[in-house]
Amino acid sequence: MSVIYNRIALIGLGLIAGSMALATRRAGAAGEIVGTARSAETRQIAAEIGLVDRVVETVAEAVRDADLVVLAVPVGAMGAVAAEIAPHLKPGAVVTDVGSVKRAVIDAVGPHIPEGVHFIPAHPLAGTEHSGPRSGFAELFDNRWTLIVPAEGSDPAEVDRLTRYWQALGANTEQMDPDHHDLVLAVTSHTPHLIAYTMVGVADDLRRVTDSEVIKYSAAGFRDFTRIAASDPTMWRDVFLTNKDATLEILGRFTEELFALQRAIRTGDGDQLFDYFTRTRAIRRGIIEAGQDTDAPNFGRGVKKS
Amino acid sequence: MSVIYNRIALIGLGLIAGSMALATRRAGAAGEIVGTARSAETRQIAAEIGLVDRVVETVAEAVRDADLVVLAVPVGAMGAVAAEIAPHLKPGAVVTDVGSVKRAVIDAVGPHIPEGVHFIPAHPLAGTEHSGPRSGFAELFDNRWTLIVPAEGSDPAEVDRLTRYWQALGANTEQMDPDHHDLVLAVTSHTPHLIAYTMVGVADDLRRVTDSEVIKYSAAGFRDFTRIAASDPTMWRDVFLTNKDATLEILGRFTEELFALQRAIRTGDGDQLFDYFTRTRAIRRGIIEAGQDTDAPNFGRGVKKS
Repeated sequence: MSVIYNRIALIGLGLIAGSMALATRRAGAAGEIVGTARSAETRQIAAEIGLVDRVVETVAEAVRDADLVVLAVPVGAMGAVAAEIAPHLKPGAVVTDVGSVKRAVIDAVGPHIPEGVHFIPAHPLAGTEHSGPRSGFAELFDNRWTLIVPAEGSDPAEVDRLTRYWQALGANTEQMDPDHHDLVLAVTSHTPHLIAYTMVGVADDLRRVTDSEVIKYSAAGFRDFTRIAASDPTMWRDVFLTNKDATLEILGRFTEELFALQRAIRTGDGDQLFDYFTRTRAIRRGIIEAGQDTDAPNFGRGVKKS
Repeated sequence: MSVIYNRIALIGLGLIAGSMALATRRAGAAGEIVGTARSAETRQIAAEIGLVDRVVETVAEAVRDADLVVLAVPVGAMGAVAAEIAPHLKPGAVVTDVGSVKRAVIDAVGPHIPEGVHFIPAHPLAGTEHSGPRSGFAELFDNRWTLIVPAEGSDPAEVDRLTRYWQALGANTEQMDPDHHDLVLAVTSHTPHLIAYTMVGVADDLRRVTDSEVIKYSAAGFRDFTRIAASDPTMWRDVFLTNKDATLEILGRFTEELFALQRAIRTGDGDQLFDYFTRTRAIRRGIIEAGQDTDAPNFGRGVKKS
């Protein structure tokens, strides 16, 4: 329990900011946590449940005297928020963000950051399909990666301090270059989400299979897709609009491979299918060995909010 | 605890048959459970761990005097197994299967079934990405659906008995027509699996993102895909080869919708993306309300084999 930032300001009080508040408190990493959100309802719920120490109405008020300012709003809203807070930032403060795309955030936020304030983008690779001020929990970042994406010329001491803060929240940390970050995430997160959204949409469209059948008989594969496709629509719209190039590149490769497998099905080429399906098993094994998931059967039962 | 079939023969001792054995024992639904598998190693492991009451070497031996014969082998192997067991089936016995495709199984198995033996196909909608004789567990079918797909002219008393048996294993049951079954499963299971396999394959191919990065930073969406894509390659090869038409139809719709979203990304049409992502949320809510999944955050932690 040691204070890393005396005052932390959370802009946006959704799943990530709420979990950061709870994890920060668990770690005793802040003297005071101030929070705000655009929606009055969100602010009211956050105040009611005591999510942060103090809920304020404006971003200007939130960042006043804050040592760390966390932008936890959809990627598309980051630029406007940065412009709004800029005149109120304390000299020497650190501004960070938790956006799923980094190049677009750097381009949108960077120009607004005043001299003497440090801007150090970051991205915690953690989440659930839930959103809103009630969805956070202190354990969200435990043993997950947070990627720190410092801009050129960032103060190494402040990069270190932000890194220690994320580690105090339970995360493993690593530094990454923004463009590489956006490509890696396009593969491991953004394109899979788009695909899941699409498959769930197809099921919803199909007249010959009723909605109730889709829901009732949704087997393991599809249930996982629906969980992914239940994620926050605003957040994901912004991800695809702002990580356009990398997502389109990966989508192109995806459809290329899908067409090859589709052709194997059409022509009855069982060997090609078998070989492909065998190869993908190895990746799963790697993920389990890397400790990023558990080997236990998981089919939506016996899962507890820890 | 009441015996429904005096002797049950399990052909194949993988995830489904193994779980049936354990659930049958839990329910006291059989006098004796006999099992066999093509692989000597599988038979040996099954005998070692006492998966069934008696492991035998041949399918002929397994089905002798059995009241219920369960074909729990890949769909593509069902016809050959049916031909092999046919001369040894007890008059009045019931033959069923657990294949993920029903029309192809009916076409392959039906012609071999002798007069006086009842053939009643079925499909338990349950599974994990694990396979083999050690992967089964008694709770696999609890509160999941098993679809009973009786052929025309099936003895209603025997259909009832098989239904009661599946209910004793913990499953909810419903009857369905084979072709409709195959279409519903193409939507809810088969196409999602193919897509997950493809996405994991793409990640594996991408030179600019290393394997270790894909594994290390695999976020929620992709981790779910890798779990799906770790499923048994033989089983899935056979599913796609035997449910070709329905899978190709759904794949066609999928790529159509994916291209529409891809175009929205390329042209920056945020409204279309937002509307699409909002619509898919409702399906998820329906699945949770139907009790087919839990609302708790699920990100690969805190999951126990119950």
